[in-house]
Amino acid sequence: MENKRFNDIAIVGVGLLGGSLGLAVKAVNPSVRIVGVGHRLSTLNEALAVGAVDEVSLDPPQAVRNASLVVLCTPVGRFPSLLKSIAPALKRGAVVTDVGSTKVAAVRAAARYLDDRVAFVGSHPIAGGEQRGIAFARTDLYDGRTCVLTPTPATPRAAVRRVDGFWRELGMRTVHLSPAVHDRVLARISHLPHALAALLVNVQNPADLDLAGAGFIDSTRIAGGDPAMWRDIFLTNRASIDQALAAFQRRLVRLRQSLGQGDGRALEKTFAQAQALRAKLLEKRLRTKRVEG
Amino acid sequence: MENKRFNDIAIVGVGLLGGSLGLAVKAVNPSVRIVGVGHRLSTLNEALAVGAVDEVSLDPPQAVRNASLVVLCTPVGRFPSLLKSIAPALKRGAVVTDVGSTKVAAVRAAARYLDDRVAFVGSHPIAGGEQRGIAFARTDLYDGRTCVLTPTPATPRAAVRRVDGFWRELGMRTVHLSPAVHDRVLARISHLPHALAALLVNVQNPADLDLAGAGFIDSTRIAGGDPAMWRDIFLTNRASIDQALAAFQRRLVRLRQSLGQGDGRALEKTFAQAQALRAKLLEKRLRTKRVEG
Repeated sequence: MENKRFNDIAIVGVGLLGGSLGLAVKAVNPSVRIVGVGHRLSTLNEALAVGAVDEVSLDPPQAVRNASLVVLCTPVGRFPSLLKSIAPALKRGAVVTDVGSTKVAAVRAAARYLDDRVAFVGSHPIAGGEQRGIAFARTDLYDGRTCVLTPTPATPRAAVRRVDGFWRELGMRTVHLSPAVHDRVLARISHLPHALAALLVNVQNPADLDLAGAGFIDSTRIAGGDPAMWRDIFLTNRASIDQALAAFQRRLVRLRQSLGQGDGRALEKTFAQAQALRAKLLEKRLRTKRVEG
Repeated sequence: MENKRFNDIAIVGVGLLGGSLGLAVKAVNPSVRIVGVGHRLSTLNEALAVGAVDEVSLDPPQAVRNASLVVLCTPVGRFPSLLKSIAPALKRGAVVTDVGSTKVAAVRAAARYLDDRVAFVGSHPIAGGEQRGIAFARTDLYDGRTCVLTPTPATPRAAVRRVDGFWRELGMRTVHLSPAVHDRVLARISHLPHALAALLVNVQNPADLDLAGAGFIDSTRIAGGDPAMWRDIFLTNRASIDQALAAFQRRLVRLRQSLGQGDGRALEKTFAQAQALRAKLLEKRLRTKRVEG
């Protein structure tokens, strides 16, 4: 069975992720009709000007009425109110997805506000970075990256297939995980790094930053991310992030013990393990030509 | 008073730092005579082949006999035995410096093994990265970066001036700090980030690394560094690094408290503070054209 393409798409939130999504969809399939939805006309007009959307709207329920696919590209904290407001306006058979970094809360909000006439398929394209806004949008943001889909047993299979095909058509590799597993894994590999980067910046004496080398600059790049977006991510994934922070803290305490004992072998082992794991990761990336730069 | 240039230089250790140093010195002043010292002939021959040194030696005391400047470019753990072995061979008026990442131990070893006929001036050029070996050596490694000099009240002023001029001639900005202050500042801004990056890699489930995004890759770049070099750095700066780790741990615990309480304002404040501090740092780098990439 051929998957039906989505021909009318509403993108809610046209910043870096939403704007890049519009550009990517248009590049693959110029005949798709895209409505960009937002709350600032200047942003919407910029999205229109760069060709990321065909029309714009300040009114979510109005904008999604004809959409066969609605993609939520706002911070995850806004999902519940958005879903509630668009639910009555969605047409029968519409599919709703998102690009949020946490999935349990998103799937729960969808289950609460959407009815059986429509399907929600959680998506997390692992792309973006610390930049923000339509000005940074680019056609290839998603190309070659990984998208995690988080269907539940209740999610209609056909909708999952269509959303999967949607991301793959943009050049993404897709992986399916349950919302809970997604949130647990991402807590360690994405949310924990952000917490560490932010604390690493904050613990510095500002006057000493003159002596920061390239290592510090790279290590803290993600701390440049939007604070409100990260607040939402942390608030919607509290338990898993706390587990990740606790696991990290245990390793920190063990490292301090090795240091206190002057245990050079233990220190070297810790550093060598990290070096080897990271080399393996990079090698695998190169092999599969999916280096994320 | 004009500072006297060094015309005979011995570089002990011709890896990334030593090799790049030879290339940079040669680029500025081709008539300088450089001896490269090491314990592996293949590395020494490679340094010779790329033009980083004019001659090579496997015998440190022999190699430094005619040097007006000796630069130690080995891991800092080897400084005591090296200084002890070359001390009797150094000529009167010779200056010894280094490129080590910790300075209290280096200065202490120099005070122990070198006599008054020669001068030791601790240097820490903040350059390098996680790459290793002569194969990565490049002429511009030091250009535009900062070099911290760590003279003590006992260090002859003339030698400090000459070493300062040496680094500035390679395009470096120089800063003078006491060895203790250097080690305390670098513990937070350089050694702490390495510890965090290594632990961040090690805390992951290897199977989950497939879902690592660009943020994780950047955050852990420095974890690719040489484990033995980092072991030496940690062993020679134990107290300051433990203080840095402890300060970080306190912030980690506070973040976990905010998370546990679902305190969105506190979380956002933490992330916003980091974002603002980092933006200020990058802006300053751009303004002074010293972006370290």
